[in-house]
Amino acid sequence: MSQAPDKLRVGIVGGTGYTGAELLRFLVGHPHAEVVAITSRSEEGVAVSDMYPNLRGHLELHFTTPDVDRLAACDVVFFATPHNVAMRMMPALLAAGARVIDLSADFRLRDADIWSQWYGEPHVAPELLREAVYGLPEMNRDAIRDARLVACPGCYPTAIQLGYLPLLESGWVETSGLIASCASGVSGAGRQAKVPMLLAEASGSFKAYGASGHRHLPEIRQSLGDIAGTDVGVTFVPHLLPMVRGIHATLYSTVKADAPALDAMQAALEKRYEAEPFVDVMPAGSHPETRFVKGANMCRIALHRPEDGDTLIVLSVIDNLAKGAAGQAIQNMNIMFGFSETAGLEAAALLP
Amino acid sequence: MSQAPDKLRVGIVGGTGYTGAELLRFLVGHPHAEVVAITSRSEEGVAVSDMYPNLRGHLELHFTTPDVDRLAACDVVFFATPHNVAMRMMPALLAAGARVIDLSADFRLRDADIWSQWYGEPHVAPELLREAVYGLPEMNRDAIRDARLVACPGCYPTAIQLGYLPLLESGWVETSGLIASCASGVSGAGRQAKVPMLLAEASGSFKAYGASGHRHLPEIRQSLGDIAGTDVGVTFVPHLLPMVRGIHATLYSTVKADAPALDAMQAALEKRYEAEPFVDVMPAGSHPETRFVKGANMCRIALHRPEDGDTLIVLSVIDNLAKGAAGQAIQNMNIMFGFSETAGLEAAALLP
Amino acid sequence: MSQAPDKLRVGIVGGTGYTGAELLRFLVGHPHAEVVAITSRSEEGVAVSDMYPNLRGHLELHFTTPDVDRLAACDVVFFATPHNVAMRMMPALLAAGARVIDLSADFRLRDADIWSQWYGEPHVAPELLREAVYGLPEMNRDAIRDARLVACPGCYPTAIQLGYLPLLESGWVETSGLIASCASGVSGAGRQAKVPMLLAEASGSFKAYGASGHRHLPEIRQSLGDIAGTDVGVTFVPHLLPMVRGIHATLYSTVKADAPALDAMQAALEKRYEAEPFVDVMPAGSHPETRFVKGANMCRIALHRPEDGDTLIVLSVIDNLAKGAAGQAIQNMNIMFGFSETAGLEAAALLP
Amino acid sequence: MSQAPDKLRVGIVGGTGYTGAELLRFLVGHPHAEVVAITSRSEEGVAVSDMYPNLRGHLELHFTTPDVDRLAACDVVFFATPHNVAMRMMPALLAAGARVIDLSADFRLRDADIWSQWYGEPHVAPELLREAVYGLPEMNRDAIRDARLVACPGCYPTAIQLGYLPLLESGWVETSGLIASCASGVSGAGRQAKVPMLLAEASGSFKAYGASGHRHLPEIRQSLGDIAGTDVGVTFVPHLLPMVRGIHATLYSTVKADAPALDAMQAALEKRYEAEPFVDVMPAGSHPETRFVKGANMCRIALHRPEDGDTLIVLSVIDNLAKGAAGQAIQNMNIMFGFSETAGLEAAALLP
Repeated sequence: MSQAPDKLRVGIVGGTGYTGAELLRFLVGHPHAEVVAITSRSEEGVAVSDMYPNLRGHLELHFTTPDVDRLAACDVVFFATPHNVAMRMMPALLAAGARVIDLSADFRLRDADIWSQWYGEPHVAPELLREAVYGLPEMNRDAIRDARLVACPGCYPTAIQLGYLPLLESGWVETSGLIASCASGVSGAGRQAKVPMLLAEASGSFKAYGASGHRHLPEIRQSLGDIAGTDVGVTFVPHLLPMVRGIHATLYSTVKADAPALDAMQAALEKRYEAEPFVDVMPAGSHPETRFVKGANMCRIALHRPEDGDTLIVLSVIDNLAKGAAGQAIQNMNIMFGFSETAGLEAAALLP
Repeated sequence: MSQAPDKLRVGIVGGTGYTGAELLRFLVGHPHAEVVAITSRSEEGVAVSDMYPNLRGHLELHFTTPDVDRLAACDVVFFATPHNVAMRMMPALLAAGARVIDLSADFRLRDADIWSQWYGEPHVAPELLREAVYGLPEMNRDAIRDARLVACPGCYPTAIQLGYLPLLESGWVETSGLIASCASGVSGAGRQAKVPMLLAEASGSFKAYGASGHRHLPEIRQSLGDIAGTDVGVTFVPHLLPMVRGIHATLYSTVKADAPALDAMQAALEKRYEAEPFVDVMPAGSHPETRFVKGANMCRIALHRPEDGDTLIVLSVIDNLAKGAAGQAIQNMNIMFGFSETAGLEAAALLP
Repeated sequence: MSQAPDKLRVGIVGGTGYTGAELLRFLVGHPHAEVVAITSRSEEGVAVSDMYPNLRGHLELHFTTPDVDRLAACDVVFFATPHNVAMRMMPALLAAGARVIDLSADFRLRDADIWSQWYGEPHVAPELLREAVYGLPEMNRDAIRDARLVACPGCYPTAIQLGYLPLLESGWVETSGLIASCASGVSGAGRQAKVPMLLAEASGSFKAYGASGHRHLPEIRQSLGDIAGTDVGVTFVPHLLPMVRGIHATLYSTVKADAPALDAMQAALEKRYEAEPFVDVMPAGSHPETRFVKGANMCRIALHRPEDGDTLIVLSVIDNLAKGAAGQAIQNMNIMFGFSETAGLEAAALLP
Repeated sequence: MSQAPDKLRVGIVGGTGYTGAELLRFLVGHPHAEVVAITSRSEEGVAVSDMYPNLRGHLELHFTTPDVDRLAACDVVFFATPHNVAMRMMPALLAAGARVIDLSADFRLRDADIWSQWYGEPHVAPELLREAVYGLPEMNRDAIRDARLVACPGCYPTAIQLGYLPLLESGWVETSGLIASCASGVSGAGRQAKVPMLLAEASGSFKAYGASGHRHLPEIRQSLGDIAGTDVGVTFVPHLLPMVRGIHATLYSTVKADAPALDAMQAALEKRYEAEPFVDVMPAGSHPETRFVKGANMCRIALHRPEDGDTLIVLSVIDNLAKGAAGQAIQNMNIMFGFSETAGLEAAALLP
């Protein structure tokens, strides 16, 4: 790639949601990036810091309506939109020479038919599905470096893949009967006004949702299959937590007879991730808490094997808005433009 | 049994914890019971309503030190103590003629060795383990009726058993590979001052705990084995929710090839529980929320079979302090003394 | 009044909001009432227990569209609607012989002009404003008994009046310079889908709102003026709490030079409320917590006089949905129909 | 002062509490500081990141027992201890040449007798009370620059002073009858295991505490008196919020007859703080929320004058651990050592 500019000119499409806000929070502190355009049809003309007062004094931008020419003039464009937006603008944007990091679901699946089945409408840019690079740096760092279009993983899939990855790569566990019992804070549902997401409805309570089928399932299947090199059988049940940020994945699998002992697995896990700046393998038997990563681009995982039986458990936590969305997107940007991969992402999690 | 008195005279040992407080909340509204003694060594002389001001105007009792004679004069004695207390007083109390409902872990397991292994000390009343009736009315109603000593199930085991019970009774699912991924509000940890249970530590976060082994596991194994009529293979992972009340169990199992279709299972489930006043089978595909049972002696469950595959999921919710502890204890009392089983337990859950 | 029927036939207009749900929760346990009609234009045909699953097994009703004839056939009709609904239906309903308990703001103010000024539209039934009895039993019990139309106080005004009442009645404090610094849980804002009430927005945070003027102010002014027998000067600032239920009022006033000492004030306060079943004067220096009244029709108050100076403080807590709305409405119903005032309202608060 | 070193060597006494953890969180990202010593008697030998896993990968330190020589070798020493610790070590530390920033209450009051009265024991280093510089940069920046010993303001006093400061400096309001009705998240109570701070006790509820007198009152009186140039009459009531971080102050005062109109006050307020990097005057009529400053060294304030009456209200929010403690301490450090005042403190608040 060509030399990175001193300050990347960054555009954001769909900046009113939580993912957009989190991109801004990271980017205002990024040494090599400057946000020059942020779009929202509904909020055109509104100062970004009026909507997100935590940014008062950090950012003077106003929302504008999306415009391909203006966006194409950016060095990089992020999509922080619901599904079905990015795929409509993408061909024109790429044609105009932009590099794009899409945080939505539009380019995560390689198979347009599966996409259509889960999203209930045709995919309008199927020809780009193969070009899109799946933006999980821990798997695809090299491909990300040269990509025009990076499709950032979903939040649940990120936590699940980083947890299962060493187990499936090593072949220690069966590829069927995987159970990903996961939970997310409500910010994963976005900033839409919906009754079930009211504090009066969602606080002080816990529930599963989509237990019979959730849109992240095909992405989980595809990505775990890629890791395993074969189709996997996986059950995924998401739950809604009465809190704002954080995803916790409890990942069950069946140990093969010839798998190594827990100590050896732990050592291998640590080795697999030792060069990764944003994956932390905690000591075996640890219980990572979602607050250990609040606001930080970090995944912390730990391994359990109850009573040395045939069930192996990985616990994996991320902040859904950080490593599960905006933080990972910026990590991808850093890779794409040759910056230090940790630039702008060094801050420790907020605790307590 | 002999005729129940007009008003049962009730004693409570260990009334300072949340379970004790919940017993009081139910009992002050019970038509056939009056609390006449409540003990606490540390709080002797303190008015109960000074510790639990929600009871101001409802109860004039003060804590006293535990005294076998005074307790034996009660018609029924509840133990709302940590483990290791009830078993020490039990022989004397029973000898004095009391009927006892123990909410602690002391008499839940039939095997004293297993008890010792998980609680790290010898059981001091092993001769009573066989006599103790396991107080899950949905399984043991008849035995409870005549029991001297009822051992109330733990909170997690209650949610798990009521969920798995129809599946295992019917033989639809494999008895190995059961996975109970559960979560509880912090009141399950009691009222002890512990740093990890501070609001500043536990709110806004989620974590697993005891993932390599938890004290409720042997009880779960024993009770599911009783239901299945054979040993079961079960993995149990509890998680801590950033909220006060509620247990949610997500119960995974593998459907046998000859199991009926989901509709038939749903119908059978509804039939199994149709006469049960405190188990509510929601429509298939529902997602019970813990707030649906907050403060109420109720278990709500729902069935899922994702993509008609071989994984069957039951979602089961209770209030850990109600159907998971004090409510179930009073349900047992009602059965033991011939009252309407719902007496004092009719109130709807508090929502929102 | 004529003899109360064995079971009152109760109608509820606007049953989909939290106030309606709370009415139902209380009424399903009321010994002398049966809900026979509940209306909602938007949810016609929906089972009430589908919207509020805590009522599954307690209530078999479905929402219907509002119909004056059907409602007029009820013994009593509650309005749990936003403002501007009750005043439109009221003339016809009263003409048809119904007795009405209005939980909305439509009939709380005696002055139609002031109402119009704060609600931004004309009052359409001003002739009923004088007839309407302000439903604070601790002030107006006798008038409530015979009322056709009871206007239940707002939630903030209830907490504020019960706190200031003994001080103003006794003439201990100046009637100017009153400051009511209050806070409410989010259920006070209702069940509408609004972004600021999302868990992701409102949890973990605290803010004032309406600090320059809030719609409850004229009601507070009118009612405190009624108590004091003169115009009062009062500043009211509400705040939003990151929780569901509860109102806390911190009520500042300036002690007159000839006021009695704190002890005497405390004694007088206790005497003022000793016959009131739903006002609890805690010991001087206490700090009532909103959880002490969660789910209960109860107000708890406490008196403070820092450093024996000239500032007197009353702390007053209620559950905004109970004593601040539905509970108080049922208390009014009990009075209107000659039941025990505590019927259906005896349950202790849910704690923890 | 002499030239600042390239990297300040920083020592922290009492690093196990939340204030210590927040100092570390800021300092690991500070360009000119390195933590070289952190002490805790109880946790000696424990890795800091074992206690605060958010710091895993950011810090390799272990807790050591406090040692004057070792601390004196640091360029600056922070005390993040309960009261009564700093004053015992201070004389020796200062004698050894250290510069000290004390976050505890030991040196905030100038009058040892008042200190003794509120803390119930004699002050052991009264000779240092006059030397100690009160570390509110917005008032004392010049004195801080050259101080040996800086006493950081308490969290409530910071929010209160920054709100009242422009009003009292300008003489717009009476200096008597000030009412500071404030609320704090539970992290202000520290990390001690106390029952009232358990999630099961403190969540979903709200209460006042110390309404008859709180230890922050004398500091508030002293500092507001310093600003006003005369004794002030102030009532301070703190409340406990069911959340972790944040202080909100609702500051009532009586406008003098000759005070300017609201617009002019707003303009003057903005001018007073326009050069301050960490005070943000929001538009008049705004309602600052505590989440607007979560994790950030920032105070946001807004002005209200209801109905143009004689009550003026300032709303003021800070993060109690940031601008209310650790952030302000580092701001002081930056001033003392000639760094940019914003070094290490630039990050935007975490929202949502």
